[in-house]
Amino acid sequence: MTDSEYPMAEQWLPSLITANPEEGFQLAITMSRRGVKFTQPDMDVLKEQRPAYSTNADSLTAASQVIAINFQTVAAANDYWR
Amino acid sequence: MTDSEYPMAEQWLPSLITANPEEGFQLAITMSRRGVKFTQPDMDVLKEQRPAYSTNADSLTAASQVIAINFQTVAAANDYWR
Amino acid sequence: MTDSEYPMAEQWLPSLITANPEEGFQLAITMSRRGVKFTQPDMDVLKEQRPAYSTNADSLTAASQVIAINFQTVAAANDYWR
Amino acid sequence: MTDSEYPMAEQWLPSLITANPEEGFQLAITMSRRGVKFTQPDMDVLKEQRPAYSTNADSLTAASQVIAINFQTVAAANDYWR
Amino acid sequence: MTDSEYPMAEQWLPSLITANPEEGFQLAITMSRRGVKFTQPDMDVLKEQRPAYSTNADSLTAASQVIAINFQTVAAANDYWR
Amino acid sequence: MTDSEYPMAEQWLPSLITANPEEGFQLAITMSRRGVKFTQPDMDVLKEQRPAYSTNADSLTAASQVIAINFQTVAAANDYWR
Repeated sequence: MTDSEYPMAEQWLPSLITANPEEGFQLAITMSRRGVKFTQPDMDVLKEQRPAYSTNADSLTAASQVIAINFQTVAAANDYWR
Repeated sequence: MTDSEYPMAEQWLPSLITANPEEGFQLAITMSRRGVKFTQPDMDVLKEQRPAYSTNADSLTAASQVIAINFQTVAAANDYWR
Repeated sequence: MTDSEYPMAEQWLPSLITANPEEGFQLAITMSRRGVKFTQPDMDVLKEQRPAYSTNADSLTAASQVIAINFQTVAAANDYWR
Repeated sequence: MTDSEYPMAEQWLPSLITANPEEGFQLAITMSRRGVKFTQPDMDVLKEQRPAYSTNADSLTAASQVIAINFQTVAAANDYWR
Repeated sequence: MTDSEYPMAEQWLPSLITANPEEGFQLAITMSRRGVKFTQPDMDVLKEQRPAYSTNADSLTAASQVIAINFQTVAAANDYWR
Repeated sequence: MTDSEYPMAEQWLPSLITANPEEGFQLAITMSRRGVKFTQPDMDVLKEQRPAYSTNADSLTAASQVIAINFQTVAAANDYWR
């Protein structure tokens, strides 16, 4: 994998390790948003979507599910903060 | 990850460890709701959604699925309460 | 996690351990239904939904998926009954 | 868990162990169908659904996904037939 | 599990082991298609569906998701080709 | 698995190992897109879909979910970059 192929202008995911479960949950949210942003990098389009999206319960459940999946990864990385 | 980036005004997820499976399931429900709340923090909007949402069977199945995914994480953290 | 926060009037999930895979599958069904019931505790509303729901193939597939996810957890807890 | 709570009139899932991956995939299909059947036990209703269901590509993808999830469980139980 | 119950006329999944990640991804695609084919064995019906299906972005995302789930299984079986 | 069955004209997935979590996330995106491309190889059709797709919030959430699932695989392969 070359640098040119995967530009890393900003370092947003230096590590999956967090101090505690709550920070891990926040990281899972960040990862979920990044997954959206990589598909639609235009922030104006994303903001336009927001009113409709964030008031639809099924959309919110779907968002919560992506967070749950990413949190599984973060939690495993941290050995569940045991 | 800086504190300013991830505000932790309230500690809602101090640990994934629970006394038994039932408390673990409750924690999974809490996590699922938090995933929604982080996307739509306005409680009034959420409450407005509730009547339509909670009487639609497919929405309820979707909610149950997010709980199931979060419960996988909690159960693994507790070594399945074996 | 305080008791007041998570009422445990009835003990419905004392353990994830079951005697065999089939009982484990039944437990996964119970867990899936609980996920629904915690979101909509009114049994009358749930019963009203049932006719439409249980005759729609996509809804049934979605229900089967939640069971499959919960069964993953139960099976792991039982070390796959090996 | 009492017998009365979980009737076991027929033994359809005696074990997750199969001779090879292909039999394991078949078992995953059986489990996926059972998840549907437990929610809608009336075979006539299920058969009525079939024409519409089995000719809709998104429904077929959804069915394939449930099989994939169940196969994850079966494959892990068999230590991936290594 | 009897042979009569699970016909094995053709051997399409002799093993989950592949030479490398790329072959593993191809196997995951094959498994995803098999999940569809077992639900709708009539190839003519499947081909009829294809034009509508393969030009709908959400259907394509759903297909990609099933592949991702099956690839999790194949990757674990191969100890991630480490 | 024969070469003729799985053409490998281009090597796009030589390894699941990446230098760090961020490159792993990029790989998960690549895998998610490949899952789409294998189902619809015609790039013109894919590009036609893009405007509608990338401005629909639910489609973006679904895309983020596939990335999350693939990232689980990549993260496990890299032992979570611990």
